[in-house]
Amino acid sequence: MLEKFFNPKSIAVVGASRTPGKVGHAILQNLKNHFQGKIYPINPFATEILGLKVYPSLKEVPEKVDLAVIAVKAELVEEALKDCNKNGCKNVIIISSGFSEIGREDLEKRIETYAKKHGIRIIGPNCIGIYDTYSGVDTLFWDVKKTNKPKQGYVGFISQSGALGLALLDKYAERGVGISKFVSLGNKIDVQETDLIKYFAKDPTIRVISLYLEGVKDGKEFMKVCKEASVHKPIVILKAGKTEKGKKAVKSHTGSLAGNYEAYRAAFKQSGVIEASCLEELIDFTKTLATRRPMKGDKIAIVTNGGGFGIIATDELVKLGLELAEFEKKTVEKLKTILPEHANIGNPLDLTGDATSERYREALEIVFKDKNVDGVVVISLLQLSPLDEGIVEVLEDMKAFDKPFTVCASGGSYTMEISRLLENKGIPVYEYPHKAIAALGVLKQYNEILKKFKK
Amino acid sequence: MLEKFFNPKSIAVVGASRTPGKVGHAILQNLKNHFQGKIYPINPFATEILGLKVYPSLKEVPEKVDLAVIAVKAELVEEALKDCNKNGCKNVIIISSGFSEIGREDLEKRIETYAKKHGIRIIGPNCIGIYDTYSGVDTLFWDVKKTNKPKQGYVGFISQSGALGLALLDKYAERGVGISKFVSLGNKIDVQETDLIKYFAKDPTIRVISLYLEGVKDGKEFMKVCKEASVHKPIVILKAGKTEKGKKAVKSHTGSLAGNYEAYRAAFKQSGVIEASCLEELIDFTKTLATRRPMKGDKIAIVTNGGGFGIIATDELVKLGLELAEFEKKTVEKLKTILPEHANIGNPLDLTGDATSERYREALEIVFKDKNVDGVVVISLLQLSPLDEGIVEVLEDMKAFDKPFTVCASGGSYTMEISRLLENKGIPVYEYPHKAIAALGVLKQYNEILKKFKK
Repeated sequence: MLEKFFNPKSIAVVGASRTPGKVGHAILQNLKNHFQGKIYPINPFATEILGLKVYPSLKEVPEKVDLAVIAVKAELVEEALKDCNKNGCKNVIIISSGFSEIGREDLEKRIETYAKKHGIRIIGPNCIGIYDTYSGVDTLFWDVKKTNKPKQGYVGFISQSGALGLALLDKYAERGVGISKFVSLGNKIDVQETDLIKYFAKDPTIRVISLYLEGVKDGKEFMKVCKEASVHKPIVILKAGKTEKGKKAVKSHTGSLAGNYEAYRAAFKQSGVIEASCLEELIDFTKTLATRRPMKGDKIAIVTNGGGFGIIATDELVKLGLELAEFEKKTVEKLKTILPEHANIGNPLDLTGDATSERYREALEIVFKDKNVDGVVVISLLQLSPLDEGIVEVLEDMKAFDKPFTVCASGGSYTMEISRLLENKGIPVYEYPHKAIAALGVLKQYNEILKKFKK
Repeated sequence: MLEKFFNPKSIAVVGASRTPGKVGHAILQNLKNHFQGKIYPINPFATEILGLKVYPSLKEVPEKVDLAVIAVKAELVEEALKDCNKNGCKNVIIISSGFSEIGREDLEKRIETYAKKHGIRIIGPNCIGIYDTYSGVDTLFWDVKKTNKPKQGYVGFISQSGALGLALLDKYAERGVGISKFVSLGNKIDVQETDLIKYFAKDPTIRVISLYLEGVKDGKEFMKVCKEASVHKPIVILKAGKTEKGKKAVKSHTGSLAGNYEAYRAAFKQSGVIEASCLEELIDFTKTLATRRPMKGDKIAIVTNGGGFGIIATDELVKLGLELAEFEKKTVEKLKTILPEHANIGNPLDLTGDATSERYREALEIVFKDKNVDGVVVISLLQLSPLDEGIVEVLEDMKAFDKPFTVCASGGSYTMEISRLLENKGIPVYEYPHKAIAALGVLKQYNEILKKFKK
């Protein structure tokens, strides 16, 4: 039943608008630009918008429509839903707000009851809908001057909050992280996270399922679904409404019950869910899990051209319960032959400030081959050193080794430019050592989840 | 005695080089561009570099030089130091590496003994020296293609690691955070953090003292100095070498003893030092303390146009032990008159997705005037909303109120552009709610330090 949300042959936009800047205009424009199927704008006061024939209501549309997007005033939603039913359309995204989040539980209950009775599946209300980079279904009202669209990729992202979802998509775009499907859930009168997690688990274009969650309706079902899905791909969740005051804020945001946080934590643990402690971790963990495979052990090599960063990374690694790999004897011998006398051959491996991309290549090839090394953190400081964009090719070549690695690069515009080049090649880059280490930590955590839950 | 490091009338560069790309060339070039006093390049094999007359050794220079920068091989440093002494120069920065950090304690000890005997003050060795945006003393070897120089500002930044220092300066430049003085300390055979903290405490251009620290030599002196300085301005420190393995890495980096971390933590607490838990916090706390005054209480207002961000900020605030302000009755009444019906009047205050800059202005003016509010977190999500660059002027105008505030803005290129505009006006911006909250937390922490230590 969810299939028609993501792969419809036709879409109706109820509340399509002629006025640029209006939601009903932006949605139509987006669909026209990206969706290959049929599009039916619905508006009783127009005959043509953006060159498309407009219908006064869905019941007048001559064919059965696969998906309807409703963006009219809350009071008019029920009527629109009835028209959907008359058309035979059974998949509806309700963008409109003005329901339980502002105390109008009555209105919300009525559309919920109607939809259930007639077998209509609903996403929303009070949401921004779907962005699917494969099918072109895009109901988000992007302001392209202010928001970058993420490219096609491997993330399945579910957010209860629309604004938060869009802010993160903008961030993902900027970091070169690709998205497969994004869904904004809003008040969730019908389609729940659980439905989407099940669906995403089977979607071959999705490598990681990422959620911003305020509250779930059915805890047991949630745990069951996550447990089953997490052996197929990692699930990362940021739970909001952890505190009493946060819960109160949740109630007036999406009308959800945030529930007891300790119970959520326990549930996450028992069902193979990786918890992000903050928004930034949600992004960091998602992008790491989308690009790399699980890390088989906990022995890390740190390769750096700045001693201070190496020390900080070491501290963070120990704090997170990971281990510094002890290099094989032959690794040390080989490194001695390629490194200058003043380089300190150990772990962290300080290639020193005069390291070039070529020195990185030689050293990394030796380190990646070391059997005692499960994962590598590559710190590349570009300010002082002769290191330059050559590092991009070097690191890309390291993908040939069957070992996860993350990159740490701190600095201004030049550093950020190099970081973007790396991220566009699917190599996760972090600005600070603690993040590059935490990202490897999450790859290890997912490996443990697999060991625990995979039969 | 330290005065001549920062405000010399003349500088000699021992090891000045004709070859672009060499350290001895870069330093000379920088000084020529920014330093107004006399510059003496020293090189026995040249007569003129960059249009400046070259002397074969410092002892040949006809006048007494205030500051010498030594950038020759480790083996030649002692000889250069003797020439300094013959010239009468008593302030020396030794850039050269190859001392205790690679096991050459013997070489290091010899120059230390010589300097002490002749009353020569030394910064380094194994350092990159000084960047003073006021006097133009700049011994850093910037590669301007790869590194941005921070503008003039209020931060006094001391780093034991040169590469780390430069990476952070590059970052500060990119974020629009200004620097007064940066000093790279290296192996610290003479000038210690304590000397600089004392000096910076009296420097009217410095509002916050920020340190990357591996280990101090004299714990008691360190505590005494920090205790005295912290009542004048906040001191923020990131301590590296917290773990056994981190300490080992410190030894081979700057030859320091990292010492027992628990003892450091206790010392920081007892002497009014604010500890940063990671590199990112060092930057975040420094930029916050440089721009705002202490926060008098712990009651925070959160103003947002995205409900999800408001909830996350609320959770983080409670986690950090801060309080959600309870608005005065008149605040609530006034907000009701200016906000639309669907806005949720509470704290967090959700101005909703259709909030304009003007709505922010009206709401913020009311909130800033509320006596129950000690500090404000302004969340401005630019993707969905009609919010645009108008927010910059609105927030700048809020500086007129005697209350600290931080801004949270998450997203891609447009958001980052607006964030830069704000930061260039001295308003600290953070990408995620937990950071904007933590920044207010540190303003409160400094207020408590003042209450505790100021007599």
